Amino acid sequence: MAYYVGIDLGGTNIKAGVVDSEGKMINKESIKTNAERPMEEIIHDMGTLVLTVIEKAGMKVSDIKAIGIGSPGTPDNIAGVLVYANNLPFNMAPMRKLIREVVDLPVYIDNDANCAGMAEAVAGAAKGCKDSVTITLGTGIGAGVIVNGRIYSGFNQAGSEFGHTVLVSGGLQCSCGRKGCFEKYGAATALTRMTEEASIAHPESCLKDVIAEEGHPNAKAAFIAMRRGDKVAEQVIDEYTDYLADGLANAINTFMPEVLVIGGGVCNEGDPLLIPLQEKTMSRSYFGPGVKKTEIRLAQMGNDAGIVGAAMMGKSCDDDGIDGISSAV
Amino acid sequence: MAYYVGIDLGGTNIKAGVVDSEGKMINKESIKTNAERPMEEIIHDMGTLVLTVIEKAGMKVSDIKAIGIGSPGTPDNIAGVLVYANNLPFNMAPMRKLIREVVDLPVYIDNDANCAGMAEAVAGAAKGCKDSVTITLGTGIGAGVIVNGRIYSGFNQAGSEFGHTVLVSGGLQCSCGRKGCFEKYGAATALTRMTEEASIAHPESCLKDVIAEEGHPNAKAAFIAMRRGDKVAEQVIDEYTDYLADGLANAINTFMPEVLVIGGGVCNEGDPLLIPLQEKTMSRSYFGPGVKKTEIRLAQMGNDAGIVGAAMMGKSCDDDGIDGISSAV
Repeated sequence: MAYYVGIDLGGTNIKAGVVDSEGKMINKESIKTNAERPMEEIIHDMGTLVLTVIEKAGMKVSDIKAIGIGSPGTPDNIAGVLVYANNLPFNMAPMRKLIREVVDLPVYIDNDANCAGMAEAVAGAAKGCKDSVTITLGTGIGAGVIVNGRIYSGFNQAGSEFGHTVLVSGGLQCSCGRKGCFEKYGAATALTRMTEEASIAHPESCLKDVIAEEGHPNAKAAFIAMRRGDKVAEQVIDEYTDYLADGLANAINTFMPEVLVIGGGVCNEGDPLLIPLQEKTMSRSYFGPGVKKTEIRLAQMGNDAGIVGAAMMGKSCDDDGIDGISSAV
Repeated sequence: MAYYVGIDLGGTNIKAGVVDSEGKMINKESIKTNAERPMEEIIHDMGTLVLTVIEKAGMKVSDIKAIGIGSPGTPDNIAGVLVYANNLPFNMAPMRKLIREVVDLPVYIDNDANCAGMAEAVAGAAKGCKDSVTITLGTGIGAGVIVNGRIYSGFNQAGSEFGHTVLVSGGLQCSCGRKGCFEKYGAATALTRMTEEASIAHPESCLKDVIAEEGHPNAKAAFIAMRRGDKVAEQVIDEYTDYLADGLANAINTFMPEVLVIGGGVCNEGDPLLIPLQEKTMSRSYFGPGVKKTEIRLAQMGNDAGIVGAAMMGKSCDDDGIDGISSAV
């Protein structure tokens, strides 16, 4: 069995773990990012965290084959550089070089949404599938596309930004500059927005009470209200699943993955979300007669997805003997 | 130099050609499909056409490495079967088996839009690129996605049906059953529809005269009227390029190809179409700071795309020593 270290770099925490070649986490550690510091300090701490996690696993650096880093923003794995990230002080950050000054191992870097897709493909809901797509519903929409067991991120490692495909031409303004992006209608925050709007437009609904109980509008409120028999909440969820299903069917028609994995906290709502979503998505997907259908499954890797996916991205690069290329080559 | 035969199967004509391993067409022949016949007869004629084209090239069957077939509908290259096609009497047609009864060579089969993408990637506008997407604007929208030099068509060979992704949620009814598909707004026929509608809504415009001169509404009329200074025609083209750019930017954000190739007769309009289209598409694509940008180029392979792409699909399978698998493996 070979071993890899995965790093999940976030705006708040840096997590790292030792992962075996089948995607099983051996152990993990976490430190604060303290993102206001110079990038050199943060990257040095990432290297030190790698040494810590290896030591606590009872291993030596020589037992580890490679390090994978899952990062927000746009990494350039060929150069080993984090080109930019929205909420981190990294601008053309030479991640590979600086980490190797602390731990001299091959270092691979890719987008966190891609790493989540890799984790599901190696050890989660899409285990055993060559082609899968993992869509994570959160503040935005992340997409991890796996083609032939490798992360697909385009020629410039910038894709797949599937959350920034227009679903509602001329619709709501998105932070990316476009109007009507999928993420404005399908992310968990979209459900929060629809819930808040409905609570104002329909004062007869119990949505406003649920929002008061929750302390603020969130992606759970509509489900809570629906369980209390609220018709307005039911309509909100119907509208949300309509948009979300349109986006998921777009992903299926585009990639025809063997498995489409969906994840993010909102999926914990279970059947009231998933049954209509499954039904709507499949009826809108383009399967001709006799054509095998994509399966929709729930993400299984949870909070470990970032670490495991980053480590397995390192593995998939390492398997091919290519230092520094993680896109499908 | 190795040689391949490509077959371009259409509802009206069957075309075949001998193509060298660099995508250069040696010669080609064409026969009528006569699509009302039993499929066995049509497929037998395809085999005979292959023998004819090889003979007329001054070659023997043993000089050819493989046959590739580009077909409408959904082929299953693993089984060697055309699962179904809208306008042909083929239903689970055993193409490989029946062709091999006439010419005993490896036979590969894929979708015609995918073959067009392959042709551009091997010998056309995306030559030398590992990752490219070719979008063909016609009655519908065809998409050929090339990943790492291979056709990507998903686990079931049904994709990429990028024309059937929703761009206008709740929009016009599409033949696929969904509402608001990209192809209802971006295909050449969409421009024809917009032109006809504008000619009725704006009788002051010269669009109705141009349509009368052309004999019927088509995708050229708005450009002809615009060249005569017609403001309504200008608005029609502005609206069409808006939708088309949204769809093309979706393709870029999804695949981040090195080159996005666009083809189809409407592209012959040149700058009046292409300049606004380029400007709108690039401004809507998600390139972060420092990230390399996709190039948009015009298709170069014209009517030969089907034959050359089919032949080169055969080559790409053949190179890997895999009989019967053309998706990215």
